[in-house]
Amino acid sequence: MSKIRIGIAGYGNLGKGVELAIRQNDDMELVGVFTRRPPETVKLLTDGIKAYSMEDAVKMKDDIDVMIICGGSATDLPQQTPQLAKYFNVIDSFDTHARIPEHFENVDKVCKENGNLAFISLGWDPGLFSLNRLYAESILPSGKTYTFWGRGVSQGHSDAIRRVDGVKKGIQYTVPIEEAKEMVRSGQQPDLTTRQKHQRECYVVAEEGADLAKIEETIKNMKNYFDEYDTTVNFISEEEFDAVHNKMPHGGVVLRSGVTGADENTHQVIEYSIKLDSNPEFTASVLVAYARALNRMKKEGQTGCKTAFDVAPAYLSKLSGEQLRASLL
Amino acid sequence: MSKIRIGIAGYGNLGKGVELAIRQNDDMELVGVFTRRPPETVKLLTDGIKAYSMEDAVKMKDDIDVMIICGGSATDLPQQTPQLAKYFNVIDSFDTHARIPEHFENVDKVCKENGNLAFISLGWDPGLFSLNRLYAESILPSGKTYTFWGRGVSQGHSDAIRRVDGVKKGIQYTVPIEEAKEMVRSGQQPDLTTRQKHQRECYVVAEEGADLAKIEETIKNMKNYFDEYDTTVNFISEEEFDAVHNKMPHGGVVLRSGVTGADENTHQVIEYSIKLDSNPEFTASVLVAYARALNRMKKEGQTGCKTAFDVAPAYLSKLSGEQLRASLL
Repeated sequence: MSKIRIGIAGYGNLGKGVELAIRQNDDMELVGVFTRRPPETVKLLTDGIKAYSMEDAVKMKDDIDVMIICGGSATDLPQQTPQLAKYFNVIDSFDTHARIPEHFENVDKVCKENGNLAFISLGWDPGLFSLNRLYAESILPSGKTYTFWGRGVSQGHSDAIRRVDGVKKGIQYTVPIEEAKEMVRSGQQPDLTTRQKHQRECYVVAEEGADLAKIEETIKNMKNYFDEYDTTVNFISEEEFDAVHNKMPHGGVVLRSGVTGADENTHQVIEYSIKLDSNPEFTASVLVAYARALNRMKKEGQTGCKTAFDVAPAYLSKLSGEQLRASLL
Repeated sequence: MSKIRIGIAGYGNLGKGVELAIRQNDDMELVGVFTRRPPETVKLLTDGIKAYSMEDAVKMKDDIDVMIICGGSATDLPQQTPQLAKYFNVIDSFDTHARIPEHFENVDKVCKENGNLAFISLGWDPGLFSLNRLYAESILPSGKTYTFWGRGVSQGHSDAIRRVDGVKKGIQYTVPIEEAKEMVRSGQQPDLTTRQKHQRECYVVAEEGADLAKIEETIKNMKNYFDEYDTTVNFISEEEFDAVHNKMPHGGVVLRSGVTGADENTHQVIEYSIKLDSNPEFTASVLVAYARALNRMKKEGQTGCKTAFDVAPAYLSKLSGEQLRASLL
């Protein structure tokens, strides 16, 4: 069997994660990385594989079965995914929840015009968490769903801290509140405020001579980012920052608390959680598993835009239906 | 829109659970219950709906979109599912893991000959747990999967206790060992023996004058059921038994501990768990959600036998693709 030929568009943490995840799947091979940087400045981890200019991607359209697009959701993906979907079957991790319907429409249109297949908004949230919300709500229609994120680094909140005057380095951890999770696990269906679900923990290296009290106050009162949360700001040395806060752990949990029975007083709780040492490497692993699914569904003749909701689980696995039924069912 | 018309074959705890679950889904209606008992002796929970003799089911084949078969896996389902699949689209919860491939072949053949669609082996294990093994192993190919069951009542083990001389009533709880779960959650990939994963907790009401020491010894040494586990046997009064041990709680967890990255030393853990006050009512809720999926896939023209692996998640939900993307993704 010939291998699934993968291209990577964008070579940041996520793109590198995809490169490493491909190594764990012997039915796939990396064809090339496409970058907006001068390609000669980009050194890949894989021997014999090159970086190319993003503009040259189209020349390789017949060499790539699936292009995994690893740009950011704010400005990259709304442009890149429809553009690349003209020439390639594509996968992205677009995660701006409110703009997913619009992104879906754009990508779907281009795919249908060009006979390509796209999967958007893959990863863990949106992605695996979305799947679990869907399964759990379909099975327990009478109930309530809760999503908790963390403990883990929020890129957006870390960026916000770094924009504050006097901050040299900063990182923010989103921390779910254990008591709230326990309440849900017990079968209750509490109404939880934003503040009752998560705390925000900041670690800051201040510029020399900066006004620490002012930095702390500015962070804690930042609208949309911190003002609705209990936030702690910890000033630490640059040495400590570099030594301790150089990783991208994350995690989270989706909980569905539902009731069944004649009086709807029988409690049933479904919980899905992940604990990640590396958020980008895990997200990349999800994208790569779905690349296998995409390649199969394309061969069956499917085109247009799809999400995790539309992909039958069996497509993700290397195993045949017969093997899956014998070993995993 | 006309409702999905459901039939229930077999009216024990699971069948009653299906009846109650249908009430929670306003796009479905119960048409009738089919039983091997004299139908006039079977009183349903739903006003206006009748029990019929199993033999009369075929007469109602045009009135039922999906027949949910609620018999036992040991002897009922291997017969009933292929028989009913001649006339109906069917769903069952066949859970004898080792015999699933054979059951699948039998049901698939009948379905294809008769243009019907069947889903087998649905519920939580096999079913939701199988799905989670599949997703997690596809995403983290380098790793190890663990399934723990309980704390909950095992019907098979409870039956085994009740066959021991001198036992009047008995029930067995399968109890997962917390230390083992914690070890897996920490990112380790331990090799765990049967004894290290689960304990067995028995509650027994003895016949008057029975030899308690002998009952305990017989239970603890029972091959395949108890001999490989740390088992405790608690003798209690019939009053306590009836008051405390009259429910069917269950639960369990599927854990995948995997590694990613250049040196495969970045730990990533996925965990799926359920905590059920009523095992049969929850299993029934799974069957009913899949009845919706089956009805849709049948309308698209699909026939043959399928499992949870073959069903795209979106089919389970009442919501449209557009609604799902806007609300759950």
